[in-house]
Amino acid sequence: MKKTYSFSVRPQDVDFQYRITPAALTDMLLTTAGMNADENGFGIRDLNNDDCSWVLLRMAVEIERFPEQYEKIAVETWVEEVGRASTTRNFRITDAAGKLIAKAVSNWAMINVMTRRAQDLIALEGIHAFANGESNEMEKPVRLQSLETEPVGEFNVKYSHIDINGHTNSIRYVEWITDCFSLDMYKSNQIKRFEINYINEILFGDKVSIHIQETETDDFRFELKKNGSTACKARVLFG
Amino acid sequence: MKKTYSFSVRPQDVDFQYRITPAALTDMLLTTAGMNADENGFGIRDLNNDDCSWVLLRMAVEIERFPEQYEKIAVETWVEEVGRASTTRNFRITDAAGKLIAKAVSNWAMINVMTRRAQDLIALEGIHAFANGESNEMEKPVRLQSLETEPVGEFNVKYSHIDINGHTNSIRYVEWITDCFSLDMYKSNQIKRFEINYINEILFGDKVSIHIQETETDDFRFELKKNGSTACKARVLFG
Repeated sequence: MKKTYSFSVRPQDVDFQYRITPAALTDMLLTTAGMNADENGFGIRDLNNDDCSWVLLRMAVEIERFPEQYEKIAVETWVEEVGRASTTRNFRITDAAGKLIAKAVSNWAMINVMTRRAQDLIALEGIHAFANGESNEMEKPVRLQSLETEPVGEFNVKYSHIDINGHTNSIRYVEWITDCFSLDMYKSNQIKRFEINYINEILFGDKVSIHIQETETDDFRFELKKNGSTACKARVLFG
Repeated sequence: MKKTYSFSVRPQDVDFQYRITPAALTDMLLTTAGMNADENGFGIRDLNNDDCSWVLLRMAVEIERFPEQYEKIAVETWVEEVGRASTTRNFRITDAAGKLIAKAVSNWAMINVMTRRAQDLIALEGIHAFANGESNEMEKPVRLQSLETEPVGEFNVKYSHIDINGHTNSIRYVEWITDCFSLDMYKSNQIKRFEINYINEILFGDKVSIHIQETETDDFRFELKKNGSTACKARVLFG
């Protein structure tokens, strides 16, 4: 029930050090999840037939090494478990030599796109037999704390930030968070763990504020608020 | 000397109306250009061996229809001509039925990455025999005018905006420009022609201001200035 997808790191995916950006890496994981669900009969298009869709709740990524421009990488994915409220999908990224470069755990809920309410996964065909119970040997994404700090930045959500239905694309959150660090930080440190909780959808025109707190050295907590209420919480741990 | 590349419009590429964004469409064209140059011995990696690189100078895209999520499209590309200072590469995008959905013309210069100076293309092997002289039957990208209007927005360039060497990725300019329109504009109109002149590179930390002028109904001119001087000019024509 595991499957591996091949990618090449494109010039558009890399940062100033020729390494894949955290946002492009996340994009690759979400693309992999989408393809794998599609191929197995429980992709977004299948769910759309019942007015449902997948919503990413949480994700944690642990990175050994950020692959470089033009590097060929393989993303292996599988569904670990399917509960009633959410399902867990795992990923392992390896390089051309087969060496592990990153692993990730993601939690997803199924919602009705009309009511925006979570649906019971027990009714979803195809996915239950697909789950193999295999963990990814890393700490799963946890519920992150809220922050009480003053915002470090504020902006309005625009056309390129949103996808279908006027919701902000999950990748944009990762960009906004990783944009809070200087190039010097990326030069002298590498992100070891990146973790995100998606709580409320950010819509076109929303005023978003970014809050940061360094709870321990190189351990940064983030909160994105839209019009004052929590939209997303995240953690970036450099090492 | 023409070659066609296949793409699928991914969920990450579409806007709130399930249509590919102008930025994602531009990204596809640049990806096509990169692959085709690579395969023929004059890609960025080949040029890098001589401390050189391609720089996109101008591009014009005419769009009949924006392809939709999951649509399979084909991008045909060829080099029309190679001058001493620049080369012209054309594109035609067709849908699964073979119907034309967009065409584009791009102009590129080769620069030395150390000196940032333009190089004479006469010395570049492989490309001259490759040019077939065939035009794309559309108005080529022209030199756009400067604007004297007050800025409509201002921001600082951040980590996710830049690629190698701290330069802003060409696609970001397209995002910043298309972000100036409301969703209502995209609902009631469609971009017919998009045209951009890349003049000066925007770097990490630069303060960018966006200037707009509607010269005729639905014909918008843009200028991006960095720290006060012109970085990019563009035109967006709705129809």
